[in-house]
Amino acid sequence: MAQNEQLDSPLVATIDLGSNSFHMVLARVDHGEVRIVERLGEKVQLAAGLDENDNLAEDAMQRGLDCLRRFAQMINGLPSGAVRIVATSTLRVARNRADFLRRAKEIIGHRVDVISGREEARLIYLGVAHTLADDEGKRLVVDIGGGSTEFIIGERFESLLRESLHIGCVSFARQFFPDGRISERAYSQAYTAARLELMPIEQNIQRMGWTEAVGASGTIRAVGQCIRGAGLSNGEVTREGLQRLKRRVLKAGHVDRLTLAGLKAERRGILPSGLAIVEALFDALNVQTMVHSEGALREGVLYELLGRHQHEDVRERSLTALAERSHVDQEQAARVEQKAASLLGRVADAWGLTDSKHADLLRWAARVHEVGLDIAHSQYHKHGAYLIEHADLPGFSRQEQQSMALLVRGHRRNLPSDEKIAELGEEGPALRRLCMLLRLAILYHHIRGYQDMPALEAEADDSGLTLYFPPGWLEQNPLTQADFAQEAGYWAKIGYRLTVF
Amino acid sequence: MAQNEQLDSPLVATIDLGSNSFHMVLARVDHGEVRIVERLGEKVQLAAGLDENDNLAEDAMQRGLDCLRRFAQMINGLPSGAVRIVATSTLRVARNRADFLRRAKEIIGHRVDVISGREEARLIYLGVAHTLADDEGKRLVVDIGGGSTEFIIGERFESLLRESLHIGCVSFARQFFPDGRISERAYSQAYTAARLELMPIEQNIQRMGWTEAVGASGTIRAVGQCIRGAGLSNGEVTREGLQRLKRRVLKAGHVDRLTLAGLKAERRGILPSGLAIVEALFDALNVQTMVHSEGALREGVLYELLGRHQHEDVRERSLTALAERSHVDQEQAARVEQKAASLLGRVADAWGLTDSKHADLLRWAARVHEVGLDIAHSQYHKHGAYLIEHADLPGFSRQEQQSMALLVRGHRRNLPSDEKIAELGEEGPALRRLCMLLRLAILYHHIRGYQDMPALEAEADDSGLTLYFPPGWLEQNPLTQADFAQEAGYWAKIGYRLTVF
Repeated sequence: MAQNEQLDSPLVATIDLGSNSFHMVLARVDHGEVRIVERLGEKVQLAAGLDENDNLAEDAMQRGLDCLRRFAQMINGLPSGAVRIVATSTLRVARNRADFLRRAKEIIGHRVDVISGREEARLIYLGVAHTLADDEGKRLVVDIGGGSTEFIIGERFESLLRESLHIGCVSFARQFFPDGRISERAYSQAYTAARLELMPIEQNIQRMGWTEAVGASGTIRAVGQCIRGAGLSNGEVTREGLQRLKRRVLKAGHVDRLTLAGLKAERRGILPSGLAIVEALFDALNVQTMVHSEGALREGVLYELLGRHQHEDVRERSLTALAERSHVDQEQAARVEQKAASLLGRVADAWGLTDSKHADLLRWAARVHEVGLDIAHSQYHKHGAYLIEHADLPGFSRQEQQSMALLVRGHRRNLPSDEKIAELGEEGPALRRLCMLLRLAILYHHIRGYQDMPALEAEADDSGLTLYFPPGWLEQNPLTQADFAQEAGYWAKIGYRLTVF
Repeated sequence: MAQNEQLDSPLVATIDLGSNSFHMVLARVDHGEVRIVERLGEKVQLAAGLDENDNLAEDAMQRGLDCLRRFAQMINGLPSGAVRIVATSTLRVARNRADFLRRAKEIIGHRVDVISGREEARLIYLGVAHTLADDEGKRLVVDIGGGSTEFIIGERFESLLRESLHIGCVSFARQFFPDGRISERAYSQAYTAARLELMPIEQNIQRMGWTEAVGASGTIRAVGQCIRGAGLSNGEVTREGLQRLKRRVLKAGHVDRLTLAGLKAERRGILPSGLAIVEALFDALNVQTMVHSEGALREGVLYELLGRHQHEDVRERSLTALAERSHVDQEQAARVEQKAASLLGRVADAWGLTDSKHADLLRWAARVHEVGLDIAHSQYHKHGAYLIEHADLPGFSRQEQQSMALLVRGHRRNLPSDEKIAELGEEGPALRRLCMLLRLAILYHHIRGYQDMPALEAEADDSGLTLYFPPGWLEQNPLTQADFAQEAGYWAKIGYRLTVF
């Protein structure tokens, strides 16, 4: 099995395509211990390439792809389960991201998962938690990125509250300090914009409380180093340090004149915006001191990737929570899941569905295909697809949620059309076949648990699928017969044959 | 106030635009007692006018509008609160329903509410419950309509389970007996189609159980009368009666030869399909005998209309349930609701928002504007709008749910655009102004309960709105100042002025 091959691989790699920088971590798993072998980071400033219509400019794409070419060399030959690549804010927003994602995959040989803001927050916390002492008490973790900022309250390895806001040091630099000039007015506008974004979440965060505040990003590190450079701390960010640094930054009047001890030249352009964001969050959340942690998104992705194989998969927990919250008939869902898996086993080779991700998707969709009933019975397959696409489901990438939503949307009434499949790119035909298998499993268990159902054989080829019930059984069960006859009609509409004996 | 005028009116009327017939009930309220003054019914067969693309043909529209012209004479001069008109399956489905609804309103002088299948089920039960003895024990109520069939389990005046399926005597007649010929094969196809539709709900209904089965439609009455005509019952539908009637219907071979004692000529065309549906539901739900009740949708709408003024409004309960289920911060919602109502009081005259339905919509939207947070924080105004538009909300018409969804969708980020408003027809501009008031109330309480907020004065004219804070207050509260300045930017985009002092 593909999964076991992955487990045997001693090297794993994760890459995060951030809005300011791209980072890669390469690690070796040695008797269950994780040893970081290599860290690479490049300032790509992807967010600076977004135009007012949220299209990513070609030169910004090129900067990103060039960086990936360099990273690619280092992970050449690693199997698919040993690499995970995630993308955040800028690629969440960019309308033309499909183009970039396709080109990135060609270069790096692995799929790029765009993750939601809350999922990013969860993974950041996981990364930070692994770098800190395993203390009691809640922590506030903040990661100021190029295009979004994540806020997490967590305890040990568990995040309890996760938020992601549209605040970023690159996007704010473009918006408030576009020509590099630093005025009191521009600084105050950036500060106020950050405060307004923070308002919806500050009360919840304060109510939950924490004993330690940790910053996970380059911005926190840079601000802390400037404060240390001025002899005001050992690298942590303090209120007094912030005020002094702000005065010096305002006095400089232009980013080109920011020659502060401890500040790298490449950080100058985003220091004023980053500083305004740090000051705003200190005020909004009433932070007194913040320490910096090296752990971040890429480390979180790494520990998650290892955890998925080694013990618990957080995705399983997310789906169970969604199913419970939506009052799904879980016995029925389990019956459908089992049948879908057994049908997949019979036709996987003939239909090219041998990748372990195909089996995962089918299982997941079976478990939650009825969540939409919680909204309304009418059109519940559409409501379910909406929930699955938009819900906050820890552990899943956007694409995974979209693929699950497609299966759920297509689990009754019409199958996904050719146009829809074409939109989905190379994965489209496989997703539709998974959808067809899901429907057969649902039809098979249409009479919920009432009836002992007979064994079923299945044979697939490119033109369609043949199901074999025991001789005479269908004639004695005309409802099931009619059900499958109706289903054959849906299949015929998209050019597939369903034959039932 | 408009509402009190309505209460004083001694006459009330309700009309239901069904897929087979249109019905009107006119009643007099005498010392709190309801006395039916008049019942009118016409066979319009609206469902027969739907083409394969779900467009309603002009001649079918004309049949409906002609019928409404006759009804209109009888309710001429009744105030708006004394009349309620509901439409069901065919107008739920018809793509060009907006055209019909507009013309109907011109003729009858009152708005037509399209109601969802589950809402129809709830109202049917209410109508039936008022015509039956107030016994203990659960009842199964079934209403076979022209385009949909409703199933309800209820006790006394409360429905416990409500379902609506795409099974109808007119739509099935067109599908399975298009030329009037009655064959065993066609009958069996109609029966099987009904059984397949019933499958998803039959287990739940049987599990809940009932002591009495009641049929509320013309189909049940007609089938019962045919059985009585054959000397097999006193008008109730029995299993034996069904089997005998089926043999006679099949033997006739064509609807034109259905000359059964007790069967009206106009019922002939839909007897075979209606009979197949009745047989299917007897088998699926294991019914032995079903009695007919005169009470139905129009009576339910009538009692509801009276109840809304006299005691409890079921819509209030629906919204509270949705807010609880979605974990809304109800204290915050109540603060926003109160502020929105007070702002409306100040600008209602200047902005033409004096109808009581405007005040209702604004209150409702305030109470549920944060429901989308339960799905995800990102884009939660969109998720909230989706939930409100699609959720099963007893007591609300589709249009009310859509209007509420519009307000919730527009409560943050961009206001509804001119294009969107144009789509909404004559109510569009008023809905957008309500949305603007909701936003101001939310901004006013943006800092949740932390802060004592000062009194606020508001003045509106056609160009926009001016808000007056106490002198000096805004300068001391720069976040609120920035908040309203940002809001003014959103208003300017749609050509409205927001001035804040």
